[in-house]
Amino acid sequence: MARLVMKFGGTSVADIDRIRNVARHVKREVAAGHQVAVVVSAMAGTTNQLVEWTRAASRLHDAREYDAVVAAGEQITAGLLAITLQDMGVNARSWLGWQIPIRTDSAHGAARIANIDGSTMIGRMEQGQVAVVAGFQGVAPDNRVSTFGRGGSDTTAVALAAAVGADRCDIYTDVDGVYTTDPRIVAKARRMSRISYEEMLEMASLGAKVLQVRSVEMAMVHGVRTFVRSSFSDPESPDLINAAEPPGTLICDEDEIVEKQVVTGIAYSKDEAQISLRRVADKPGVAAAVFMPLSTANINVDMIVQNISEDGSLTDLTFTVPIADFDRAQAVLEGARDHVGYQAIQGSTDVAKISVIGIGMRSHAGVAAQAFEALATRGINIRAITTSEIKISMLIDASYTELAVRTLHSLYGLDKD
Amino acid sequence: MARLVMKFGGTSVADIDRIRNVARHVKREVAAGHQVAVVVSAMAGTTNQLVEWTRAASRLHDAREYDAVVAAGEQITAGLLAITLQDMGVNARSWLGWQIPIRTDSAHGAARIANIDGSTMIGRMEQGQVAVVAGFQGVAPDNRVSTFGRGGSDTTAVALAAAVGADRCDIYTDVDGVYTTDPRIVAKARRMSRISYEEMLEMASLGAKVLQVRSVEMAMVHGVRTFVRSSFSDPESPDLINAAEPPGTLICDEDEIVEKQVVTGIAYSKDEAQISLRRVADKPGVAAAVFMPLSTANINVDMIVQNISEDGSLTDLTFTVPIADFDRAQAVLEGARDHVGYQAIQGSTDVAKISVIGIGMRSHAGVAAQAFEALATRGINIRAITTSEIKISMLIDASYTELAVRTLHSLYGLDKD
Repeated sequence: MARLVMKFGGTSVADIDRIRNVARHVKREVAAGHQVAVVVSAMAGTTNQLVEWTRAASRLHDAREYDAVVAAGEQITAGLLAITLQDMGVNARSWLGWQIPIRTDSAHGAARIANIDGSTMIGRMEQGQVAVVAGFQGVAPDNRVSTFGRGGSDTTAVALAAAVGADRCDIYTDVDGVYTTDPRIVAKARRMSRISYEEMLEMASLGAKVLQVRSVEMAMVHGVRTFVRSSFSDPESPDLINAAEPPGTLICDEDEIVEKQVVTGIAYSKDEAQISLRRVADKPGVAAAVFMPLSTANINVDMIVQNISEDGSLTDLTFTVPIADFDRAQAVLEGARDHVGYQAIQGSTDVAKISVIGIGMRSHAGVAAQAFEALATRGINIRAITTSEIKISMLIDASYTELAVRTLHSLYGLDKD
Repeated sequence: MARLVMKFGGTSVADIDRIRNVARHVKREVAAGHQVAVVVSAMAGTTNQLVEWTRAASRLHDAREYDAVVAAGEQITAGLLAITLQDMGVNARSWLGWQIPIRTDSAHGAARIANIDGSTMIGRMEQGQVAVVAGFQGVAPDNRVSTFGRGGSDTTAVALAAAVGADRCDIYTDVDGVYTTDPRIVAKARRMSRISYEEMLEMASLGAKVLQVRSVEMAMVHGVRTFVRSSFSDPESPDLINAAEPPGTLICDEDEIVEKQVVTGIAYSKDEAQISLRRVADKPGVAAAVFMPLSTANINVDMIVQNISEDGSLTDLTFTVPIADFDRAQAVLEGARDHVGYQAIQGSTDVAKISVIGIGMRSHAGVAAQAFEALATRGINIRAITTSEIKISMLIDASYTELAVRTLHSLYGLDKD
């Protein structure tokens, strides 16, 4: 007997037939004697529709209202899955964020979980009732619905797994695990059976959409063993019922991984937009004047490049923000124009960030230089570079994305035989 | 300065353009200096889609889960309207049932309001903030979302008007008032400028879909002056801004109505289904054995006819239930079969209920006899009859609905000149 959290994303619950398939996965685990909580996303397409409506209503919408609108998507799926489970004879009930409660901070639209009081829910699970939890949402200190940003249902799942002391958190997705890179653009990408929290964190941060970044952070902090697996496999397959380790990728502590490689994977992201401030005064405090208002507006800034000014007085400042925040970021910067003092804002959404990731980089020199050379050979211009202990990221023109990823995947010996 | 509750139904908020139109109506009242709460339904089509999904998941679904699913519809509209109002410079925020809170009993799917604590909301309204309230929903004693049944947003509006001490509750609909009968089937139907609570209650109970029954009951009990008007009129029209009494129908106390008529209106309903139990034991306690389980299952039974049995031992029992509960009612009765003792259940959804309504009937004899004679002349068979002080209802074959309504409308002199 184990305690499991199972999480199903939007494509896995896209219609009633798929919800029924999800219910069969849940039933299999219940039949195996496990205590189960299931976290669900909105049905595929629903969140996009809701977001589109909020944008049509106003471009600069109140994030608290945005949350009230989009959280409805997960609420619907949770109720439908509970009904479907009951129909199959599985004792189940739905839980909304405010009912558990999952308490968050007040950063509406990108809220962070403050704490989860899992006690009532655990009581029900111990009595054999499956908890069907609406992902992506909680309740803010002002008693209003808050959401975690796109993909936030992964965060709900991992946080819940930590809160209820689950033995494992199974993330069911439309892929069967984590690959060395996106298999849609590199046919030779390989599925990894294990990956460390740190590497997965970089992969997720950098566009491998299998898991949401914050969920990986949370898994790392709380040591939640997180297993990425396919939701489209036959739920009653003997392979799943009897397998010691079913197909998928386990995200776990570095120590659990025997074969370590220098570079583990190549990630890319087209979800960022570049913003350049032209002719900014090159003086102390300018960076703060630019980035504080963005931070206050809950806009995450990623790559930052500041050129040396020719005459020591004016410079250009370039950085990236999530594409979703592109308009809002520009509005914030327009508002700060007098305070910052710049000549013009320029922006482009036509960029991509390519990243090379591997724990092994810590102890191997020259990994970055190899990447720069390989891209140069292909005539790919690098607009900006950031590095960490275990990754190198490069901002390039979006049109070179696939070429760059394939080049680096081969370069580091990741291609499947 | 007055305090107003404004309510907009599903077709009035069917898309972002219409929501913007609603916002303009609200803005007009705010500009006139009024304190405003707006109650909204789900966008047209949304509730049907959600209900369809719950049915596809399971025919006999858990009403608590049904509520969690369908309440999402109003949640979405409330957020979108708040965003739209803000975009027009009107201070506004959304309120969900559990946030206000609107406390209900535990009859999920058809819950009744127990009490509304309007204090927090009133405080905000007094500070000039428009309260945008998700209609149709509250929170049950077990802290789960409850809904009021179809059309429940009217109930929210009237109950809220009573709770916040509103001067008037304006129900904006896709029609411009209450008519003597359905203008779609009787071209000569007339709009009434006023109608008493009692008459409106019967009209609503019997199929005039302008207002939900319970909302009228509530208006009557709390003396909420309720005004039915069009949501499709130009919100900025000088007629609306300056009119002493804009076009519409005021539902008010009988004493406020000067010109009283014997018959006020003709209503019809195709929303009921007939169930007949064949060869039921004709003994004391049988009616209770049949109707108690239905009541326990929260199924409303309306017209009841019991024939005299030939030999004094077995009889037929006929009654009507809402079409939506038809399957569930039959399942309940199957479950009670041994206890009740009957030979067969027969049912038909192909029936209509036609009603003649008027406060004047109290003091005028012969109104019912006239109706029976007029229908008989047209060859329309009456399956069942129920009467009250101010109405007569007749169950007939659905195919005769229009003919019967037109016949009665003329009979009582309601035709427009």
